[in-house]
Amino acid sequence: MFGNQILGSVSYQGIRHFSSFDPTKNRENSEHFLCASDEEIEIALQSASISFDSFAQSTPQKRSLLLLQIVAELIEIQENIKHIYCKESGLSTDRFFIEFNRTINQLRLFASFLTNSYLEIQSETPENTDLSLPKLIKKRIGIGPVLVFGASNFPLAYSTIGGDTVSALAAGCPVIVKAHPFQPETSYLVGNAIQKAISKTDFHPGIFSQLFDDSYDLAKILIQDSRVKAVGFTGSFSGGNALLELINKREEPIPLFAEMGSSNPVFIFPELLKEKLDKWSTIFAKSITNDAGQFCTKPGIFFVPTNSDGREFVDLLTKKVLEEPSFTMLHPKIFNAFEAKKRERLEECSGELIEKKGDLVPCMAKQAILISSIESFLNSKSLQKEVFGPFALILYYSTKAELASAIDHLDGQLTASILLSDEEFVNNQDLIFKLSQKVGRIIKNGVPTGVRVCDNMHHGGPFPATTDSRFTAVGTDSIHRFTRSVVFQN
Amino acid sequence: MFGNQILGSVSYQGIRHFSSFDPTKNRENSEHFLCASDEEIEIALQSASISFDSFAQSTPQKRSLLLLQIVAELIEIQENIKHIYCKESGLSTDRFFIEFNRTINQLRLFASFLTNSYLEIQSETPENTDLSLPKLIKKRIGIGPVLVFGASNFPLAYSTIGGDTVSALAAGCPVIVKAHPFQPETSYLVGNAIQKAISKTDFHPGIFSQLFDDSYDLAKILIQDSRVKAVGFTGSFSGGNALLELINKREEPIPLFAEMGSSNPVFIFPELLKEKLDKWSTIFAKSITNDAGQFCTKPGIFFVPTNSDGREFVDLLTKKVLEEPSFTMLHPKIFNAFEAKKRERLEECSGELIEKKGDLVPCMAKQAILISSIESFLNSKSLQKEVFGPFALILYYSTKAELASAIDHLDGQLTASILLSDEEFVNNQDLIFKLSQKVGRIIKNGVPTGVRVCDNMHHGGPFPATTDSRFTAVGTDSIHRFTRSVVFQN
Repeated sequence: MFGNQILGSVSYQGIRHFSSFDPTKNRENSEHFLCASDEEIEIALQSASISFDSFAQSTPQKRSLLLLQIVAELIEIQENIKHIYCKESGLSTDRFFIEFNRTINQLRLFASFLTNSYLEIQSETPENTDLSLPKLIKKRIGIGPVLVFGASNFPLAYSTIGGDTVSALAAGCPVIVKAHPFQPETSYLVGNAIQKAISKTDFHPGIFSQLFDDSYDLAKILIQDSRVKAVGFTGSFSGGNALLELINKREEPIPLFAEMGSSNPVFIFPELLKEKLDKWSTIFAKSITNDAGQFCTKPGIFFVPTNSDGREFVDLLTKKVLEEPSFTMLHPKIFNAFEAKKRERLEECSGELIEKKGDLVPCMAKQAILISSIESFLNSKSLQKEVFGPFALILYYSTKAELASAIDHLDGQLTASILLSDEEFVNNQDLIFKLSQKVGRIIKNGVPTGVRVCDNMHHGGPFPATTDSRFTAVGTDSIHRFTRSVVFQN
Repeated sequence: MFGNQILGSVSYQGIRHFSSFDPTKNRENSEHFLCASDEEIEIALQSASISFDSFAQSTPQKRSLLLLQIVAELIEIQENIKHIYCKESGLSTDRFFIEFNRTINQLRLFASFLTNSYLEIQSETPENTDLSLPKLIKKRIGIGPVLVFGASNFPLAYSTIGGDTVSALAAGCPVIVKAHPFQPETSYLVGNAIQKAISKTDFHPGIFSQLFDDSYDLAKILIQDSRVKAVGFTGSFSGGNALLELINKREEPIPLFAEMGSSNPVFIFPELLKEKLDKWSTIFAKSITNDAGQFCTKPGIFFVPTNSDGREFVDLLTKKVLEEPSFTMLHPKIFNAFEAKKRERLEECSGELIEKKGDLVPCMAKQAILISSIESFLNSKSLQKEVFGPFALILYYSTKAELASAIDHLDGQLTASILLSDEEFVNNQDLIFKLSQKVGRIIKNGVPTGVRVCDNMHHGGPFPATTDSRFTAVGTDSIHRFTRSVVFQN
C-alpha cells in the first residue's frame, strides 16, 4: 500500500484506494494507492504555506542546487522508474529514455538559468538616477504555493517533476502535486526522489507534497483553498475547463495556467509538394502515429491543395500512416475516447474514414485518416476539436481565400505548421500573420512534435489551447507564471 | 449634445443621456452626453476587431510616432482641457498641471521605449545555435482589442489616455475606452485628440473608440463580447470585483487587470521617531490630505509604537492633518461614501475619531484621524478596508510580535511604508520580507504617494489590491499585460 507524500515522509491515513492499469497487458496493476484524507490534505496545504517564507527567501543559487540534487536522485533510480513507467503507461523503453533525458535536461536548464541569468534584482538604468527621484530596485519573488496537475501522456516531463513543478520550485514556490491517477507509482518514485533531494539540500520539507486520488474531490478541495496561490495544469480541455470553473468560484482570483491540447493544423501550399511529396508524407506519417499520437503537438488537421499533387500527397500520407506500427494507448479511458472521437468526427462531416485494418485489440489504437473538404470544416464548430491519438483530418482547399476563412474559423492552437516554398512564404505574409494570431508557435517546413526545452521556446497559445496566451509552459520563461515583482524604494 | 467617438468620427445615435457634476459649485454641468446605442457598441467592437490585423503588424517605431502625435494634440488643447478638467473634478489647476505633465511624460516614456528597448524580436543566444536543433525566433505581439475603464481620481493620467490605453496602444492593441461618467467632457476632449493623432499618423481609425454611459449596461455588453481580448480597470474594489464576476461568465477566459485600491499601511519603528517627529508628521499629514486624499496610494493605516514618542507623533500628525486645507471631492457619490466609511470604521473599532471642525459643506471632505489599537485591527476583517479620502487609522502596537501578526492579517496592498533607522532595518529583515509578500512596493523612510512613471516601477500587488499580482499598471512593464509571444520555428 502506497501513502501520500507530505512533509518529507509518507502518510497512510487514507481509507479509499485505487490501482493503476497496465494497458499492454490489459489488466489492473496489483499495487494500491491510498487517497489523501482530509487531514493529510490540510497538512500538505499548511506545510506549503508555512515553508513559503523561507523558500522564497532562499537564494537562486541554493534552489539551483536543489534542482541538480533532484537530477542526481532520479538518475540513481532510473532503472526502477523505467520498469514502472512502462507498466503504468504502455509507453516503450525507447520512449522512456527520451523522456527521462528530457526531464533531466529540463531540470538542468532551470538550474543553470537560476545561477546565470535569472534577473532576481533589476536595478535602475544609469540614465534614470536623477538624485531628486526616489531610487527603485525591482525584485522578483515567488507568488506562493503552486498546485500542479500533471499530464498522463508525459509521466515524467509534464508530471510530478515536469515543467510546472520545476519552474515553480525555481521561482521559490512550494509545490503540491496531485499525482496523475494513471501513473501513481511512477509519480510516487519521482516524489520520493524530490523528498530526498529536499532533505539533502536542507530545505523545509513542506516545499513539496504529492497527494493521490482517483476522483475529482481532491482537486476541488485544493483549488479552492486560500493558501494555494497559482495552478498549473496539463491535460484535456474538459479537465482544464473544469478547473477554470472551480477557480472562478474563489473569492481571491489566482492565476491558472492550463494547457488543454490543440489540433495543430498544417497548411500545405502548392509549390512545395511538387518535388517533395515522398519526404513530407513520411515525416508527417511518423509525427501523426508515433507513440499513438499522444502528444499535445500532434498534427491533427491538414489543409491540402485540391490538385493532383495534393491528392497524391494524401494518398501517400494515408498509406504510410496505415503502415506505421500501432501503439498501445495510455489507458482504456484514453483508448475509448479515441475510438469514440474518430466516429464523432466522421459524423460531423461527409468524409471518408480510412482506418488501420484488423481486429480491435484492447488499448491498441488503430490509426486513421479522415478525408473531407474545407466546407465541412467551415460549417462545423466541433470538427476542428482535438482527437487525442493517431488520427488526422484532411481538408482539401482550392483558393487562398478559403485558407484565410479557415484561419478565421480556427480556435486557438498551440502550433501551426506551414509547408511552402520561399516564394510562397514571401507572398503569404498576410496569411501567416493572421495565423500567428491563433497560435503560440508557427513551424515553417517542419513538424510540430518535439518541443525543444530552451530559453526561447513558447509553448502556449490562445484559448482553448491554454487559459492564458501570455505565458508558456515550456522553457525558462515559464517561471514567470509563478513570480511577481516587488519594488523596494529608497 | 456630445456623441460617441467611433471610427475616427462622432456618432449621435443614442437616446439616453447624462451630465457631469461640478463639485465646487455643487451643481450639474449643463452639457449632455449621449449613451452609446447597441449599434454604436457593435460598430466600436467590430472596428476594433477589424483594425487589429494592421495595427498589430505596424512597427513599434510607427506606434511610437502615434504616441508622440497624441502628445502634440494634447498640448494644443491644454488650456481647454484645463478648464473642463477642473469643472468636472473639482481638482485644482495646480493639480491639473501636475497630472497633465505626468500624462505627457507617460506617453513619451512609452514612445521612447518602443523605439529604443522594446524587444520585439528575441533571437536565440549564440550558445544555443546547435545546427541540428530547430531555430527559434520569439516575437511579441499584441493580445487583441483591449477594453479600458478609466479612474475618476486621475481624469487624465489613468483615464482615456492613461496608463492602460497607452500601454495597449504601444503593444499594438486597439482600445475601446468606456469614458468615466464623472468626467465625460474631459474624456471627450482627450478622445478627440487621440482620433486626430490616429488620422495624422495614418492608422486605421478603428484602433480607438470611446463610448459613454452612466449605467453598468455598457460595461456588461463590452466585457462579455468575444472580440474583447483583455481588460484594464482602475477604480474601487466593488467595481473591479463586479467586472471579475462578469468576466468569469465568459466562455473564453481573458486577462483582467483591475487595480482596486489599497490602504497602504505605514509601519513606524521606535528608533526613527526619537529625533524626527516633526519632519515625519508634516510629510505624512500632507500625504494624507493632499487633493482630499483621493489617491490609490494614500497612506491609510499607521502602526505606531505605544510609547511617548509614538503618542507625540500621533498628536502632531493629528494636529497637522486638521490644519491642512480641506479639498472638494470628485463627486457627491465619492463624498457621501467617504462620510459613510469614516463612521463605519469608527463603529468597527472602539476608537476615537478626530475630525476637522466646522459645518458640513457639500462635497468638501472633512479630514479625519481615527485612533485605535492593534487588537481591534486584528479582530476585524473590515477595519483595514480602504477609506477613499483624507483619512487615516492609527493603531498603537507594543511588540514586534504584534506587528508580525498585523502583517499576517493584512490584505494585499499596493504599497507599504516603513519608517526605521538603519539598525532597525537590518534587525527587521524577517518582518520586511513578510511584508513584501503582501505588497507591490515597499517604501523605506518615505511616503507612498507620488508613483514614479518609469521602467522600473511596480504598481500592483496581491489581491484585493489588484486581480493579478504578476503585473504592474504603471511603467513600461505594464505593456506585458497586453502582449503575448509567438515563436517562429525555422
